[in-house]
Amino acid sequence: MLDERAPSAPLAATRTLRLAGPQALALDSGQALDDLTIAYTTYGELNAARSNAILICHALTLDQHVASANPMTGKPGWWEAMVGPGKVFDTNRFFVICSNVVGGCMGTTGPKDINPATGKPYGLTFPVITIRDMVRAQVLLVDHLGISELLCVAGGSMGGMQVLEWMASFPERLVSAMPIATTANHSAQNIAFHEVGRQAIMADPEWRGGHYLADAVFPSKGLAVARMAAHITYLSEAALQRKFGRELQDRTTVSYAFDADFQVESYLRHQGRSFVERFDANSYLYITRAMDYFDLAADHGGQLSQAFKWLKARVCVASFTSDWLYPTIEAKRIVHALNAAAANVSFVEFETDAGHDAFLLDIPEMFTTFRGFIDAVAAHRGVA
Amino acid sequence: MLDERAPSAPLAATRTLRLAGPQALALDSGQALDDLTIAYTTYGELNAARSNAILICHALTLDQHVASANPMTGKPGWWEAMVGPGKVFDTNRFFVICSNVVGGCMGTTGPKDINPATGKPYGLTFPVITIRDMVRAQVLLVDHLGISELLCVAGGSMGGMQVLEWMASFPERLVSAMPIATTANHSAQNIAFHEVGRQAIMADPEWRGGHYLADAVFPSKGLAVARMAAHITYLSEAALQRKFGRELQDRTTVSYAFDADFQVESYLRHQGRSFVERFDANSYLYITRAMDYFDLAADHGGQLSQAFKWLKARVCVASFTSDWLYPTIEAKRIVHALNAAAANVSFVEFETDAGHDAFLLDIPEMFTTFRGFIDAVAAHRGVA
Repeated sequence: MLDERAPSAPLAATRTLRLAGPQALALDSGQALDDLTIAYTTYGELNAARSNAILICHALTLDQHVASANPMTGKPGWWEAMVGPGKVFDTNRFFVICSNVVGGCMGTTGPKDINPATGKPYGLTFPVITIRDMVRAQVLLVDHLGISELLCVAGGSMGGMQVLEWMASFPERLVSAMPIATTANHSAQNIAFHEVGRQAIMADPEWRGGHYLADAVFPSKGLAVARMAAHITYLSEAALQRKFGRELQDRTTVSYAFDADFQVESYLRHQGRSFVERFDANSYLYITRAMDYFDLAADHGGQLSQAFKWLKARVCVASFTSDWLYPTIEAKRIVHALNAAAANVSFVEFETDAGHDAFLLDIPEMFTTFRGFIDAVAAHRGVA
Repeated sequence: MLDERAPSAPLAATRTLRLAGPQALALDSGQALDDLTIAYTTYGELNAARSNAILICHALTLDQHVASANPMTGKPGWWEAMVGPGKVFDTNRFFVICSNVVGGCMGTTGPKDINPATGKPYGLTFPVITIRDMVRAQVLLVDHLGISELLCVAGGSMGGMQVLEWMASFPERLVSAMPIATTANHSAQNIAFHEVGRQAIMADPEWRGGHYLADAVFPSKGLAVARMAAHITYLSEAALQRKFGRELQDRTTVSYAFDADFQVESYLRHQGRSFVERFDANSYLYITRAMDYFDLAADHGGQLSQAFKWLKARVCVASFTSDWLYPTIEAKRIVHALNAAAANVSFVEFETDAGHDAFLLDIPEMFTTFRGFIDAVAAHRGVA
């Protein structure tokens, strides 16, 4: 029996696009990928005018499963709060696309895939990629789908970096853009945390100079430590304190040993353990490197506003009060540059103690703001 | 030829005190150390009234070489800015004592020493120790030196935890106390960072369950990663940005590889490498555990003010504006509790962008304040 109240299905379709070389994807490094596979998921339907497409860009450890269960983990899509029938990015109205980034490990070509030149997994022979390379691959996908103009490109964290790169490199293809909880470049502290993670992976003897796949081993311990260190930066001090404080795990007094006495220890160990089941260690190296390299001002003569000089899209920049990874000051730098370029920009800072990962959570004020923005953009563009 | 302008020598004397068991040091865990060696350094001379003794407590990775060169590294004492002839803790006037903590690796009994019960290095058979255990050992040392009352006990970071423990457990032995850049307990975030470090060490196969010394190996890579992660917390975001920003190391463009392209990467790697030459991996586990366990309020019925109910000493609590490891709010909690116990307390927050490690640096305003405090205490006690 059909449930009459059920919203329309999101019509999720997971596909891959394969582009054969040579030079399927030219890269910032001067190298190229000769054979490129892009794994992506779409939700909803492209309208006849091809004017209702929205591209979602994912963060460091996320993937293309934005609004449907991840087949590897069985967990819900990572942005189901925002994407789906009746949601802000309403899949009954919009055609939503999300692709795994180049260098990733969820189907798009990355270091765990076979290097066509050698017939062996790339490992460290995979070329170092940049945020712009990720965006170039997305352009190829959007071209393949026959979409000349995106109604919106949106994303948080590293997803927001890709949004900024779209705004700078492909401004003519955007009606609107939503860079969320992001930055136009990494601070020394941002780089430092990533470097700790990379060193943790490389310190694991099972990493084997990046050739672990050929040897059928995996640097689980190193990757878990990298994840633990990074995870601290995704939550605010207040959120960690509220969730865990100094509460003990399954005991009433400390053990006077090195067990996970505190809940926060147990939580972090769990974060590390579960991460290594779903993520590739070399992908972690490559993607963190791409984030550290990202510097939109440096790419435009040292002046961020120059990155946006051709931009006509409407932009909504968003930050979160307790995000100490990419604090509001970073969002304001982007807003100032957009203003200096006479762009159409609105800025909102959401009050929350949840930290950087707040963009993934249920924050009603965020939904209201984003819904207002995208509805106005759609109305302006005549999208029903 | 004597340089007439040279100040008096600090009369540094490095000694060890050996206390034979059984039960030389009873521990909070219920266990005991049967054989205890305390390595300590003194500066200046104890006066006839035995009223000019100042105990300095060291931080996690520091040692007893507070105002004279560390014989292992050849580097200057870690607090020469504060301790020496004519300095705030003037070794021409005061008898300054600093001892390596129990569980440490610079001469005081710790996990790298021989377990008298087995004839082999303790490793993980060393009992888990607490901040109070460290202080109990200091009391034995002070007793041995024939000092019934300390003019001051002072220290930053974990040193400050020891100062707070002295104030709570041995209040009758203190004329004054200076807990600096410290906290009465670790937050969930503090514990989380330490847990990352411990997991990094334990993930290193050369750690071998803590028995690396018996096998003549050392978990250098894991300990280096632990140090790198911790080091980020010792500096402010602003200090890292000021020192390194996004500057490249010995190159003009990025390498598109995994070398240390950025100066901050090179700096962190150096911090890791140099640390493993001077510190024991198991000591790092034990001392971080002691810090995580420290909870002065919990030890006193959940009320921090109860910890100070017997305190008559004058107290100077100090914090630093950019310290995000132990932010000023933690210092204020201590001050509020002291006020609630009607203690004689002054509080000062120093403006600096240097972060947690600011207490080790040249900050003229800090010197002026601390000098005023210790001079007033000395005058009050009739110390010339």
